[in-house]
Amino acid sequence: MEETRWKEKNQYLGLTEDGRRVRLLDQSQLPNREVWLELEEPEELAEAIRTLRVRGAPAIGVFAAYALYVLARRLADRAPVEAAFRTRLREWAAGLAATRPTAVNLRWALERMLARADRTAGPPEQIVQVLERECRAIHREDGEMCRRIAEHGLTLVGEGDGILTHCNAGALAASRYGTALGPILLGQERGKKLRVFADETRPLLQGGRLTAWELARAGVEVTLICDNMASMVMKNGWVQACFVGCDRVAANGDTANKIGTSGVAILAKHYGIPVYVLGPTSTIDMACPDGDHIPIEERDGEEIKTMWYEKPMALPEVKCYNPAFDVTDHELIAGIVTEKGICRPPYTKSLKALFDDKK
Amino acid sequence: MEETRWKEKNQYLGLTEDGRRVRLLDQSQLPNREVWLELEEPEELAEAIRTLRVRGAPAIGVFAAYALYVLARRLADRAPVEAAFRTRLREWAAGLAATRPTAVNLRWALERMLARADRTAGPPEQIVQVLERECRAIHREDGEMCRRIAEHGLTLVGEGDGILTHCNAGALAASRYGTALGPILLGQERGKKLRVFADETRPLLQGGRLTAWELARAGVEVTLICDNMASMVMKNGWVQACFVGCDRVAANGDTANKIGTSGVAILAKHYGIPVYVLGPTSTIDMACPDGDHIPIEERDGEEIKTMWYEKPMALPEVKCYNPAFDVTDHELIAGIVTEKGICRPPYTKSLKALFDDKK
Repeated sequence: MEETRWKEKNQYLGLTEDGRRVRLLDQSQLPNREVWLELEEPEELAEAIRTLRVRGAPAIGVFAAYALYVLARRLADRAPVEAAFRTRLREWAAGLAATRPTAVNLRWALERMLARADRTAGPPEQIVQVLERECRAIHREDGEMCRRIAEHGLTLVGEGDGILTHCNAGALAASRYGTALGPILLGQERGKKLRVFADETRPLLQGGRLTAWELARAGVEVTLICDNMASMVMKNGWVQACFVGCDRVAANGDTANKIGTSGVAILAKHYGIPVYVLGPTSTIDMACPDGDHIPIEERDGEEIKTMWYEKPMALPEVKCYNPAFDVTDHELIAGIVTEKGICRPPYTKSLKALFDDKK
Repeated sequence: MEETRWKEKNQYLGLTEDGRRVRLLDQSQLPNREVWLELEEPEELAEAIRTLRVRGAPAIGVFAAYALYVLARRLADRAPVEAAFRTRLREWAAGLAATRPTAVNLRWALERMLARADRTAGPPEQIVQVLERECRAIHREDGEMCRRIAEHGLTLVGEGDGILTHCNAGALAASRYGTALGPILLGQERGKKLRVFADETRPLLQGGRLTAWELARAGVEVTLICDNMASMVMKNGWVQACFVGCDRVAANGDTANKIGTSGVAILAKHYGIPVYVLGPTSTIDMACPDGDHIPIEERDGEEIKTMWYEKPMALPEVKCYNPAFDVTDHELIAGIVTEKGICRPPYTKSLKALFDDKK
């Protein structure tokens, strides 16, 4: 009973009971306010992605699929001509896809929904039924994939181990278990307690606002630290493994993730602590040979000086450098944990094997 | 002419022209407001130290010496009995010393002032004259020491080099050149331009508020980064040396400094970049064998969640770990730059030699 309730609590995204609106926890208001939104208008759905009310690559994909379904259903109620219905569907998908141009899962989910509609002959009502099944399947599959990553990751740590994590790759960012936080949440469910140290992750502070929020809510023992305290925490002997997510993994194992991840990995190597990257195989880009080929988004430097603050924390004439991601060298990574299992070095072989299996 | 003005600008602490008040730039209001205070009352002088209007170990020492002189002079004007005068002097010194219990320079400067008074026979007016010479000497000697550190440090870098620094060990924290920022400010004065990357240094943000402020003001090219971006900046090849200050150096070279310094040093080692610790010989504690014997102050965890923000950035039930300093292993340090010269490994020998010379 306790477990069921917890699982429900750990779901931050879905359809309303009547299936007519997308229901989500507004991440932009965490940790101070837990506001659940129910959205149905095209503009408010797009705005939710744009303003980070929903964030995390997998969560954005699931949200967009639900959004397209909700829009399709509303239109179908008004008995449109089939051709016009299909045209509107494409327009809405394009509008949703444009909200976060770099999010791979977003476009992938919308294209999957559209392809499903294209393959369905018949009137709008029938297409809508197919789309409902498809968006629910996307969500279910994402949750299942996260559960598998969590299962594999949980084999890497023992009862009472200290885990350091960076940014937020938890249930808020994906489905149910998330990726990097999956083993921790699954361990908690099974009574295998882990102690987490969460880097606050400047400048967006996802560590305090999101990771510490969702772990504390799930009953996990979590300690928030500033990014520059990771070295001391490791030196104190409090960390047995680092779990981090990934935005893109190259064929040689080089991994792009939130800015600061490479620093965590270098510290961990110095202190002899293994670093594990957790993510779905869809994040592995076999066409990308190494980290030098991963483009890194640079964000507005004003974020560092002004975001969250009443007054700026540096003079207007001081320039800032604000890369959103960095690349962790494959030599610093002890394992890459996917839904298909744990890849070990050399990654050029072990990652390739994941995709050879597929065939 | 330009140089003279710059030197004057780079002085953030002193006596007013009439010598009756302590004049200082209120650091707690930087970077948004440059407010100069003129203080003379016992309580406002103590409050200035307590609330970090003046901070940085050497600067606190100089300030306290000036404060004691100003108080002594005010009292002498009222023609007190000599014994009562001497008693009040001791009481004021004790009150000032109690404002920051761990600051070594603070107590050192006050004891030096009191010892000078004790050695002076004669009426209060005469003691006051001696105290004025003494506090001015303390300031001048601190400035001279900083200039020597800067001279030695400047030999370690070449025109156009990129320097990464952490926290603030500049003119605001000491006299005129500061310690870690000394070579940069002196280089700027001499036309040897260096490019500085300043870690913002969470949670107190001295990097943006103080280091970037004073370097920008001195015309130095400075780029502010979040602490977790140091790895990326180093990987980009933009950093040729790291300059950091020190709160205490053990006999084997292990160095306590602002939290995050050890992380910077580990990253620098990974990327093959030398780390230099800059500070006066008075910071070297030959009675302390190694870093394990340096006690580390832990500050209130609420700072991480609430300081600077309108609303807390983590739930009340999330605990924080907030050490104020960490210890950098001597093996990560390429050199320790003092006013007497640059010590190289093995530090057990080179640091000892500094003090043998003295005898």
